[in-house]
Amino acid sequence: MKSLDQSLDHLTAVRNVIRPTTLIRSPRLDELVGAQVLIASETFQYTGSFKFRAAYSAALRSPASRLIAASSGNFGQGLAYAASLLNKEAIIVMPHNSAAVKIDAVRRFGGKVELVETLKVSRAQRVSELASQYPDAQVISAYDHDDVIAGNSTLGEELAERAGEYDAVIVPVGGGGLTAGLICGLMRAGSPMEVYGAEPLLANDAKRSLDAGKIIVNDGEPQTIADGARTVSLGQRNWAILQSGIKAILEVSEDAIEDAVRSLFRLANLKSEPTGGLAFGAAVAYKDKFKDKRIICVVSGGNVDTELFCRIIGRE
Amino acid sequence: MKSLDQSLDHLTAVRNVIRPTTLIRSPRLDELVGAQVLIASETFQYTGSFKFRAAYSAALRSPASRLIAASSGNFGQGLAYAASLLNKEAIIVMPHNSAAVKIDAVRRFGGKVELVETLKVSRAQRVSELASQYPDAQVISAYDHDDVIAGNSTLGEELAERAGEYDAVIVPVGGGGLTAGLICGLMRAGSPMEVYGAEPLLANDAKRSLDAGKIIVNDGEPQTIADGARTVSLGQRNWAILQSGIKAILEVSEDAIEDAVRSLFRLANLKSEPTGGLAFGAAVAYKDKFKDKRIICVVSGGNVDTELFCRIIGRE
Repeated sequence: MKSLDQSLDHLTAVRNVIRPTTLIRSPRLDELVGAQVLIASETFQYTGSFKFRAAYSAALRSPASRLIAASSGNFGQGLAYAASLLNKEAIIVMPHNSAAVKIDAVRRFGGKVELVETLKVSRAQRVSELASQYPDAQVISAYDHDDVIAGNSTLGEELAERAGEYDAVIVPVGGGGLTAGLICGLMRAGSPMEVYGAEPLLANDAKRSLDAGKIIVNDGEPQTIADGARTVSLGQRNWAILQSGIKAILEVSEDAIEDAVRSLFRLANLKSEPTGGLAFGAAVAYKDKFKDKRIICVVSGGNVDTELFCRIIGRE
Repeated sequence: MKSLDQSLDHLTAVRNVIRPTTLIRSPRLDELVGAQVLIASETFQYTGSFKFRAAYSAALRSPASRLIAASSGNFGQGLAYAASLLNKEAIIVMPHNSAAVKIDAVRRFGGKVELVETLKVSRAQRVSELASQYPDAQVISAYDHDDVIAGNSTLGEELAERAGEYDAVIVPVGGGGLTAGLICGLMRAGSPMEVYGAEPLLANDAKRSLDAGKIIVNDGEPQTIADGARTVSLGQRNWAILQSGIKAILEVSEDAIEDAVRSLFRLANLKSEPTGGLAFGAAVAYKDKFKDKRIICVVSGGNVDTELFCRIIGRE
């Protein structure tokens, strides 16, 4: 019981720091799906995506005062800010050709950036070099890690409070950390809501894994516009949870992802990154399935380059 | 006392329908101002701006089942949706050259659109024609109306709940309806927070009015990018409240308005219309005044054309 208590104390400590998700209802989104839609937006989470939940949880639990992670995206920003709040140091390994705005964001949040020329040295290799250089440091995985799942489970707890009003939750799937966390949080709160994963058709390894009953690995990094879902496979821990806890995986075409980002912008004033548009895109693409249902769509993050964003929302 | 009770019942009825404002903290916005900044965003209010508070309040209180208003912008959408929730009819008079997306939005929210060729017939003239045609209808002013101020005062009540943590509120000023409502709501809740108005330098009639001690009228409609502040003067009712309740009016240049929209987008993932950027623009422009203070910036709405928005956020 002591470990359960400690675990609950940990979750309470995380919930005291993270920002509760932003719940948005828009009559015009309902009209588009033909269902009652609640948007659960993580775009205003500190550092702009749900990853801060995971990063803060992992940084808080780690006994190390120096944390290392490979991330060119949202996890790097989340861990940098989490570490700075906890007076720890975060070293984020990023490809040398990452967008300047992303490198700048990690630094602004207090992180130390290690650029690697990924054609010469892999990110994993550089991470392990740094781990040898700093034996007191801990390497944190962005998605396949119990503390990461625990951090993300706080979103499930929050949504469980709406369980009486909603039938299902749709959530973007990349490495599966958010989905696994969401399932755990809903279960812990005793919520009966169904969980659907939304995955790019171009990166449908989770769908194929569920069909095959084992983890299927993509051939290389899939070139979907949803860069948060460009993972080569589900994490092991996440897979175990998804297998038993997910209702189905819904595949979303690239066009449907862009349409979702555009609809969220035009009809609900929401800035979403492409990965963040996956769940609403799935709701529209599978509208027959959700007709007259009450569904929650998770918008996982809002960090997107201005140029790409304007290209998407400017299309007719 | 009966009338006070009725008035409180009315405000409770409004608060039961409108969406509470969205409170956003962003470490990177704090850094830009050198102060603790809380964004109070009305961009997710139903119909995308604070105007729904005003419109619902006016539509609820009106005994008429048919409502008429002249509005090319946010009030039209707000009144159309408010009327549809109350099973009333809303007729919105709009210039025939209004953006198609705005005409479409009013219709989607259930409003009936009356287009006028404003070079031939003024909007006021068409409104009065319609009023004669429908003697049972009530004409609703978008900003100089007690029920409009009452509706907007609900935002003041919400912010008063944060009064212990914040020193001042900055709010966009156009016709003054939002500012007047905010002042009334804060006073009713006994909040000591100071209220600053943020006004485009190009449309600074409120500033000049306060300096002169009487309402000053702009020569024609000012061509500021903040289209919600293109009013020719403060409303009479609003003026009386502003005179005693406002700390100061802060003038914001066109560049500073655009910079604010861009910063809200890039650093806080928030889609704001130009008028919505006024308060944060004022916080940055007057950062010496607010150094190390704790301030709330109201983002009044998020309805902006895609093309204009991308031109603003794409500038370096």
